[in-house]
Amino acid sequence: MKILIVYDSKTGNTERMAYAVAEGAKQVEGVEVAVKRVEDAKLEDLLDADGIIIGSPTRYGQMSAKIKDLIERTIEIHGKLEGKVGAAFTSSGGIGTGAETTLLSIIEAMLIHGMIIQGISEDKHYGAIAVEEPKEEEQQN
Amino acid sequence: MKILIVYDSKTGNTERMAYAVAEGAKQVEGVEVAVKRVEDAKLEDLLDADGIIIGSPTRYGQMSAKIKDLIERTIEIHGKLEGKVGAAFTSSGGIGTGAETTLLSIIEAMLIHGMIIQGISEDKHYGAIAVEEPKEEEQQN
Amino acid sequence: MKILIVYDSKTGNTERMAYAVAEGAKQVEGVEVAVKRVEDAKLEDLLDADGIIIGSPTRYGQMSAKIKDLIERTIEIHGKLEGKVGAAFTSSGGIGTGAETTLLSIIEAMLIHGMIIQGISEDKHYGAIAVEEPKEEEQQN
Amino acid sequence: MKILIVYDSKTGNTERMAYAVAEGAKQVEGVEVAVKRVEDAKLEDLLDADGIIIGSPTRYGQMSAKIKDLIERTIEIHGKLEGKVGAAFTSSGGIGTGAETTLLSIIEAMLIHGMIIQGISEDKHYGAIAVEEPKEEEQQN
Repeated sequence: MKILIVYDSKTGNTERMAYAVAEGAKQVEGVEVAVKRVEDAKLEDLLDADGIIIGSPTRYGQMSAKIKDLIERTIEIHGKLEGKVGAAFTSSGGIGTGAETTLLSIIEAMLIHGMIIQGISEDKHYGAIAVEEPKEEEQQN
Repeated sequence: MKILIVYDSKTGNTERMAYAVAEGAKQVEGVEVAVKRVEDAKLEDLLDADGIIIGSPTRYGQMSAKIKDLIERTIEIHGKLEGKVGAAFTSSGGIGTGAETTLLSIIEAMLIHGMIIQGISEDKHYGAIAVEEPKEEEQQN
Repeated sequence: MKILIVYDSKTGNTERMAYAVAEGAKQVEGVEVAVKRVEDAKLEDLLDADGIIIGSPTRYGQMSAKIKDLIERTIEIHGKLEGKVGAAFTSSGGIGTGAETTLLSIIEAMLIHGMIIQGISEDKHYGAIAVEEPKEEEQQN
Repeated sequence: MKILIVYDSKTGNTERMAYAVAEGAKQVEGVEVAVKRVEDAKLEDLLDADGIIIGSPTRYGQMSAKIKDLIERTIEIHGKLEGKVGAAFTSSGGIGTGAETTLLSIIEAMLIHGMIIQGISEDKHYGAIAVEEPKEEEQQN
């Protein structure tokens, strides 16, 4: 099973999460993991994966524009991601600052692709969230 | 595979959808389908099913209070619905009147239970929506 | 200006928030504040207020069934809450456990009523959130 | 009162909506309306307006990447849009194809800015939606 982790990161927080998620996924036998910055992710990478995990900083309550741009380019392969497994994670500058709606923005796009999402019954139900100390630049993780 | 369809309905629109969804599911070989009004659904019914499909009228942009009440009672079996497949449908009084947010309110509750949701790549991405002519009583389907 | 605070609470967390919000509102000159448990709130109370603040525990990512039941009964006065100011707060058992989607469930219902919502540019953008230590009973605040 | 309408459009549907919304706004006495493509909108335009209306095609259930990119650049003026009035509209390729979640993605970003949103009690509660015939290119309005 091939897992692709695509992330966008400016300060490095979401990038650190991406590699931590990759470490976790590698523990599962038979799983092959690739990690790509959103700038380097190609549509073939998405087609090639069985599971796609997308990580975005929390930016104004939704996935980042760069992640959104990748999502929009997937219109070319619409229908071909159907049945693949999806998940989301985010790095946020505080509590109640849009992390949940960011995860849901990614999950909604995945549902529109006919992808399969599993929630998490214990804590962080919609996907992993890393909360950094709220700083002035909180929206810029 | 056992599918449970739970619905709430006042005017009969969501009930009609429930039976149409049941007809569709019965076409799949090996699938056993039960349809229950929300008032009659018990926690054991949910535990017993492999797939749970919940139908609600669109009421102020979320699942109905009766469906929500059932969802809240599932706290007693929290963790035990994990890995079950979920889906949602709604009957709405118009376009842009809260059908999508109603479906998502059900999907979010299912994700919190660790359930598995698959989106739909062609049309009605978050679940089936029946739109009735907008009437004065539009919120009361 | 009359502010009505309506809340649902089981363990007392959301109730404590309701009285804290009331204290804050009373500091504003010319503001009269009433606090009501959801069981005691009548439609006339809503009609009578200039601003309506609704507090709910975070329960499976949406407002509680009791709050939802009140919202549904407002269909009788649909159109008459138009232009009133609304806000939401929630008490949650953790981070990423549905507090944001709970606030949005209330905000969406208020928007459907034509009410006016102002976000918060600093922290907790969608409304106040109190996070209690995650406990086994986390969904039961 | 100055109203700024910012829109993104590829096929022209959202653009037509933008000009229709502008026509409507101009009927109100004392209102001055400017319409800008997202590529031409500057942060000063947003600062200068009393009301900001954002129109986006429905693309995978959220505002377009171009609109999102503008939203992200507003981090530089975070706090300065507080108290301005906001609204959203979208052009969608069908019913249940993400129009509501697209409007909410814009509304959520506006709430994070501390802006003021009023819902609509009659029909299309979260903002105007134009539904075009579902076509193969439905996601590309």
